Amino acid sequence: MTSHSAPLQSWLPIPADSHFPLQNLPYGVFRPASGKEPRVGVAIGDFVLDLSVLEERGLLAAAAQSGKRVFNRPALNEFMVLGPAAWRQVRARVTELLRHDTATLQGDAPLREAALLRRDAVELLLPVQIGDYTDFYSSRDHATNVGTMLRGPQNALNPNWLHLPVAYQGRSSSVVVSGTDVVRPRGQTMPEGAASPSFGPSRALDYELELGFFIGTGNNLGESIACERAGEHVFGVVLVNDWSARDLQKWEYVPLGPFLAKNFATSISPWVVPLDALAPFRIPGPTQDPQPLPYLRSSGDWTFDIELEVTLTTAKSTEPFTICCSNARNLYWNICQQIAHHTVGGCNLRPGDLLATGTISGKTPESRGCLLERTWGGTQPLALPDGTLRRFLEDGDRLTITAWCQGDGYRVGLGEVTGKILPAAM
Amino acid sequence: MTSHSAPLQSWLPIPADSHFPLQNLPYGVFRPASGKEPRVGVAIGDFVLDLSVLEERGLLAAAAQSGKRVFNRPALNEFMVLGPAAWRQVRARVTELLRHDTATLQGDAPLREAALLRRDAVELLLPVQIGDYTDFYSSRDHATNVGTMLRGPQNALNPNWLHLPVAYQGRSSSVVVSGTDVVRPRGQTMPEGAASPSFGPSRALDYELELGFFIGTGNNLGESIACERAGEHVFGVVLVNDWSARDLQKWEYVPLGPFLAKNFATSISPWVVPLDALAPFRIPGPTQDPQPLPYLRSSGDWTFDIELEVTLTTAKSTEPFTICCSNARNLYWNICQQIAHHTVGGCNLRPGDLLATGTISGKTPESRGCLLERTWGGTQPLALPDGTLRRFLEDGDRLTITAWCQGDGYRVGLGEVTGKILPAAM
Repeated sequence: MTSHSAPLQSWLPIPADSHFPLQNLPYGVFRPASGKEPRVGVAIGDFVLDLSVLEERGLLAAAAQSGKRVFNRPALNEFMVLGPAAWRQVRARVTELLRHDTATLQGDAPLREAALLRRDAVELLLPVQIGDYTDFYSSRDHATNVGTMLRGPQNALNPNWLHLPVAYQGRSSSVVVSGTDVVRPRGQTMPEGAASPSFGPSRALDYELELGFFIGTGNNLGESIACERAGEHVFGVVLVNDWSARDLQKWEYVPLGPFLAKNFATSISPWVVPLDALAPFRIPGPTQDPQPLPYLRSSGDWTFDIELEVTLTTAKSTEPFTICCSNARNLYWNICQQIAHHTVGGCNLRPGDLLATGTISGKTPESRGCLLERTWGGTQPLALPDGTLRRFLEDGDRLTITAWCQGDGYRVGLGEVTGKILPAAM
Repeated sequence: MTSHSAPLQSWLPIPADSHFPLQNLPYGVFRPASGKEPRVGVAIGDFVLDLSVLEERGLLAAAAQSGKRVFNRPALNEFMVLGPAAWRQVRARVTELLRHDTATLQGDAPLREAALLRRDAVELLLPVQIGDYTDFYSSRDHATNVGTMLRGPQNALNPNWLHLPVAYQGRSSSVVVSGTDVVRPRGQTMPEGAASPSFGPSRALDYELELGFFIGTGNNLGESIACERAGEHVFGVVLVNDWSARDLQKWEYVPLGPFLAKNFATSISPWVVPLDALAPFRIPGPTQDPQPLPYLRSSGDWTFDIELEVTLTTAKSTEPFTICCSNARNLYWNICQQIAHHTVGGCNLRPGDLLATGTISGKTPESRGCLLERTWGGTQPLALPDGTLRRFLEDGDRLTITAWCQGDGYRVGLGEVTGKILPAAM
């Protein structure tokens, strides 16, 4: 088998442009119908495979090699705790059950009916109980653009940026699943030239195009995870929209960082793509100069070739308008470096912790992953096909991020994360 | 009944200087013996009252008016969810059971034996499952001292400080209960005048004297909690030591705030003192000039007269040496203002969330609540009775914070939070 190889065949019909072919098999949590208990499933084509049903029938138990059930749960955490060997066993078993040459599920109509549901008929829930959410700042172009706006091009990158993956702790209570509406936050701003702050709805509501890595297995407090072992701790990847209120951020963030500007909502995609599904799309990372300190030196390819696209649908138009095309290869610091840095002082990561990349911007204007950069602080508004201009997000706007890896004849996709802006509370 | 009234009498002997008289009744989680399941208890004098035993016997069920058990749990969260009316009913019932004139427990030797355990014989655990931990920066003298060291006395307070309670999201995974040893963190620092950063154990390990308020009942995402209703959401109070590595902090914190400098450990005291136990010690707050925006205006007295004391015990000496005496009245922003600000943009608080005050310093050198201030950045080391000097914490040092409210003939105390510094990992 080579990378980007021809598609494996499933007995289920998989549309050619599906994000969820046999090569992907992302995990999510869903409710099959109103009133039913949440459980873990795998997306396959237009369907969800209910792993709790397979587990109950004993079709996965041997794979997981665990006495207790982990898939009739409202979150992936108990599966995550089992570790990479169990993840691989379950993935191999699910692959086998869905392959064209396996009859177990394919040939058992009652079982198929119990275990396979149409994806558009189920309710997708937040897939993970998130303990802590950490947000990095790992795209050099993003940091450079923001720094240039604040301090000019000569001092764009702060002195620490090339030496360590800058990050802050985000808010986990307000991480929501794709499709959740986002209420425009209110808060304090300090208008240019004013003597005292104002209060009201944010006038500079923004999105941020990010990826998020879920920690599968953690480390003990006081210990650390070495860079070369960090990949084993990663369960999978989702899309993240780190909604941001730039006007609140500007006033509040000195000296302790963003707070209300970020804590009103963070949206993630519902399907967690296993790291193994992304293996064919790992590529060499950027040259890092200056060379990082030894604890941050990673070996192997931990940069991902993932196409990223952002669309905006306004209240006036039903057509989504593409406002950004970027790629995960634009990240300077990789997930192994982020984990090594996060834990080097002894901080413990726990199963279900979310590590987001920060906005993923590239060198071109079209690849800038937030409106702050895309409209250069609102000074270069975007002209939309519906005849309106956008500096920042308006009420009724729907922002959608999608992403995929392009294989030879198939895509491994991350699905999408979408959210609509509702007017501020009175 | 007036404030600071004569002590209620219990049939249990309560030492005169006990932090846990009948007026206090703080909640904690403990394991009665190795191998036993954790459960909820109340501290009374030198004893713990096992609420799971009382609940099992039906002595609390009516009080809680809840069909399900909440005290045979490893955390207070399920009790918190029941809300202020239930908290008050349980508190009134426990008070009644411990009063000198009530025979139910006093006169039932087998029940007493089952439900009352010596405090020094049980293992105290983290009392709450903490969702998110937020750390404020609400002492004016602390912010002024730190700002003066960084920017000089003319620009000590940042422009936003008097207008909003500055805060950042802290790390919840590394919140540990009192008594847990703290491993000195390693990390990057940028030595004065160096061209590139160094890596190694922190050389400026510090403590921070704080209080922490536990949220009992939260709010929905997209909604907010008004300042005048915020007090109803508070379950109780603990002591917090927000351990800090000042040298890591200095290098990493621009522009997104502290990360590794704070996430290696935060210690809290095991007994959560109910807000009602602190009611007699509420006092008028400081005059706030400029007047805060309307959403931050609080009515009633939400400042607390709580004496705070910090001691250091070195590896060379068994005698604790007092290095700080402060008081919670030194806080500029109160808990209601903090909650109103935290939620005004729609951020949801959940039962068990922890909101810490930030370092509580007063005007005198002796009242400065961290070594950074106390030794003025290490330039004015403390001379200790064992003949050594302290700029920052050394391996083997034990740092203990204690606190109490002084009533007339009794104390409502917060117990203590203590931790010893272990050498950095190799």
